[in-house]
Amino acid sequence: MPSDDTRILLRESELPQRWYNINPDLPAPLAPPIHPGTGQPLGPADLAPLFPMELIKQEVSMEPYIEIPDEVMRVYKLWRPSPLYRAHRLEKHLGTPARIYYKNESFSPPGSHKPNTAVAQAYYNKQEGVKRIATETGAGQWGSALSFGCCLFGIECMVYMVKVSYEQKPYRRLLMESWGATCVPSPTDTTNAGRTILAKDPDTPGSLGIAISEAVEDAVTRDDTKYALGSVLNHVLLHQTIVGQEAQAQFKLAEDYPDIVVGCVGGGSNFAGACFPFVKDKLGGKQVDILAIEPQSCPTLTRGDFRYDFGDTAQLTPLLKMFTLGHTFVPEPIHAGGLRYHGMAPLVSLLVSQNAIEARAIHQLGTFEAALTFARTEGSLPAPETAHAVKVAIDEALKCKDTGEEKCIMIAYSGHGFFDLAAYEKYMAGDLEDHEYSREAVEAALKELPEISEPAA
Amino acid sequence: MPSDDTRILLRESELPQRWYNINPDLPAPLAPPIHPGTGQPLGPADLAPLFPMELIKQEVSMEPYIEIPDEVMRVYKLWRPSPLYRAHRLEKHLGTPARIYYKNESFSPPGSHKPNTAVAQAYYNKQEGVKRIATETGAGQWGSALSFGCCLFGIECMVYMVKVSYEQKPYRRLLMESWGATCVPSPTDTTNAGRTILAKDPDTPGSLGIAISEAVEDAVTRDDTKYALGSVLNHVLLHQTIVGQEAQAQFKLAEDYPDIVVGCVGGGSNFAGACFPFVKDKLGGKQVDILAIEPQSCPTLTRGDFRYDFGDTAQLTPLLKMFTLGHTFVPEPIHAGGLRYHGMAPLVSLLVSQNAIEARAIHQLGTFEAALTFARTEGSLPAPETAHAVKVAIDEALKCKDTGEEKCIMIAYSGHGFFDLAAYEKYMAGDLEDHEYSREAVEAALKELPEISEPAA
Repeated sequence: MPSDDTRILLRESELPQRWYNINPDLPAPLAPPIHPGTGQPLGPADLAPLFPMELIKQEVSMEPYIEIPDEVMRVYKLWRPSPLYRAHRLEKHLGTPARIYYKNESFSPPGSHKPNTAVAQAYYNKQEGVKRIATETGAGQWGSALSFGCCLFGIECMVYMVKVSYEQKPYRRLLMESWGATCVPSPTDTTNAGRTILAKDPDTPGSLGIAISEAVEDAVTRDDTKYALGSVLNHVLLHQTIVGQEAQAQFKLAEDYPDIVVGCVGGGSNFAGACFPFVKDKLGGKQVDILAIEPQSCPTLTRGDFRYDFGDTAQLTPLLKMFTLGHTFVPEPIHAGGLRYHGMAPLVSLLVSQNAIEARAIHQLGTFEAALTFARTEGSLPAPETAHAVKVAIDEALKCKDTGEEKCIMIAYSGHGFFDLAAYEKYMAGDLEDHEYSREAVEAALKELPEISEPAA
Repeated sequence: MPSDDTRILLRESELPQRWYNINPDLPAPLAPPIHPGTGQPLGPADLAPLFPMELIKQEVSMEPYIEIPDEVMRVYKLWRPSPLYRAHRLEKHLGTPARIYYKNESFSPPGSHKPNTAVAQAYYNKQEGVKRIATETGAGQWGSALSFGCCLFGIECMVYMVKVSYEQKPYRRLLMESWGATCVPSPTDTTNAGRTILAKDPDTPGSLGIAISEAVEDAVTRDDTKYALGSVLNHVLLHQTIVGQEAQAQFKLAEDYPDIVVGCVGGGSNFAGACFPFVKDKLGGKQVDILAIEPQSCPTLTRGDFRYDFGDTAQLTPLLKMFTLGHTFVPEPIHAGGLRYHGMAPLVSLLVSQNAIEARAIHQLGTFEAALTFARTEGSLPAPETAHAVKVAIDEALKCKDTGEEKCIMIAYSGHGFFDLAAYEKYMAGDLEDHEYSREAVEAALKELPEISEPAA
């Protein structure tokens, strides 16, 4: 008999003490990253200029669980355990027999799941004496989370923010500055990468690819500085698994268990964090559908190739085996900026290729409609990224209305939309449209990729 | 031995079931409101065009507790019970032996304590068949809370937003629209009050006084419409007392009790909600200091007179006996817009006059400095109003550092500052300044007030 509570809460003493590492449970081995210069598998030393050694160890660890350090736990307790909500009002509005839950990460200080890894990364950098961290940010969620993490550990934070977002979302920048970070519009004239771009196109709006190049260059050219990434890599996904572990403890309390777990995917960190503990159950024989939702305008998992590609436009990063649309593919501008990435976390990619995760691509207008339905029943206004998962949860609940099935659905509710109200304004005014991806552009981008075959184990 | 948890959480089943009505516990009787036309004490019938009867009854009730209706409880459960935080990181940063707690109302969907009454008011209106509610809003907190409340009960919501705020804070307006409300810049040309003002001054930035007049006129001239107020009145303060009752249950769990309770005061609803249950203890003999913090630029409690005055500039509302700077007094523009009110809730005023509550006035620059200290230790960025309480809590904690006293301090943490980042930007750029109130302007405003003596009981 499932609980009738609106919020299923864990006490501080019930906070999971370890991150879950899915690597040893994978149904097939993960292909190693490849060095962009040598074409050979990457060794730990290759990453040392960018990341502290503890994170590099986590990146390749085969331990099933990794202890969360006390100092990270103390910061987590500012908003963790996060609530698992039962969407009573949404269910009633839809008239569905389905039970809908949402694991709500929007109450962290920066407003999303991102600080789960930002705090951990800041901690490990601090442990190894790092004084300054450089990173890039697109929509601003990651930049503000890292600003927050660095602030609490007394580390200087330098954020290269894609210029068009810097200008469109001044509140995100101001939030970073409130936490003491420096945030500059990218491209800047302070890096070679930035100067090169500006020389060609002084009015460029910038891109995530350019911002990554600037942050990486900043980190490798300064002794006191490392680099930090907010998604894609194994250690980033690892830190997010506290979300799904909490959700499992909460379902136990509620005497329920999901038939469907649904999350949006950009680089994959929110999705992996909420879903990997359920993927473990599924790989162990449990019946649960795990749905990764991406935008039609950037359909990496549903229309991309599963092969080696660079993480950035400028080909500075290691090559990762992942679903990709090609690193030169530029998705149409949509308002879920966090989902506009050509690649996908290798761990998520592998699990999709093994049919442990089902991927679906959807259009943005439907996500905004679903988001307003959610806000007008549950109160909370989701980020446009989060709205992708909300849309599919509503669709699945309506299917249950037709079939009479009493399915249990969990939404990975990654963040709030308070800084995205300009997008909602456009939607409400009828000024938004749907974008199809360009098959020709993807084919052209994929043709440029080097042919790299997986090294023998 | 006080608990060491970061968040003291109550379960849903521990949510208080009743609002606390301080009226029968007052050390002196409350003076009745006076009709602006007749000069006589107001009867229930006089308020019927504006409010549903159940709220009018609550306004004059002498019952010590009033049951919270089930439907209101179900909505409260979307964010209630709210967490009581222990500010471990702030304490450590200050090096104080004091224990600092903050009762955090920022996690409600509109981001403040305001929906505690907005939801209740929407419910009682719905019960009496009201189809539409009109209100005013200054900074936008109240307007968004009422939009949220009306949305959940299927009531149309019309918000007259002070024009200068409407233009400066587009995100607040958009949040209201996301919940389906209509928000217009006041003065409008759709009311007599608005047209009269526009005829004199087409470029007026508007004021709360004008917006109140428009909302009241809208309500009294339409059969399907009532009016709602977000502070000042007894029933509004009543609904907020769930905050302080929860805090008391949480202190019991934490095995602690505050020596100091501190909140900001504008109209008085946040302050009353958090503090009245502690005032009850104090009136019963318990030792606890209760501090009401107001801005130096609008020092109603510390520099005003305790006498009858109107609630609005246009003299449309009943006369209330309260601390006032005079209804024609216009405070300097400060960024804590929610604290720019010439009057004060009669209940709070009476308790200050009886020395049950201590009032202090402080400057805004110090509040922003305190807010950033708070954000950089606890993570959460307070609203400029809330920052007034944070500032005084920090000052009191630093006094403890000098004296070695291990005092327990509770902050009434009323809301987040996500929609106030433009104010933080000005502060960080050094563009903010402190404003002293004008003694001459207050004297002039008070001279205009009618001499009304309290009717015999």
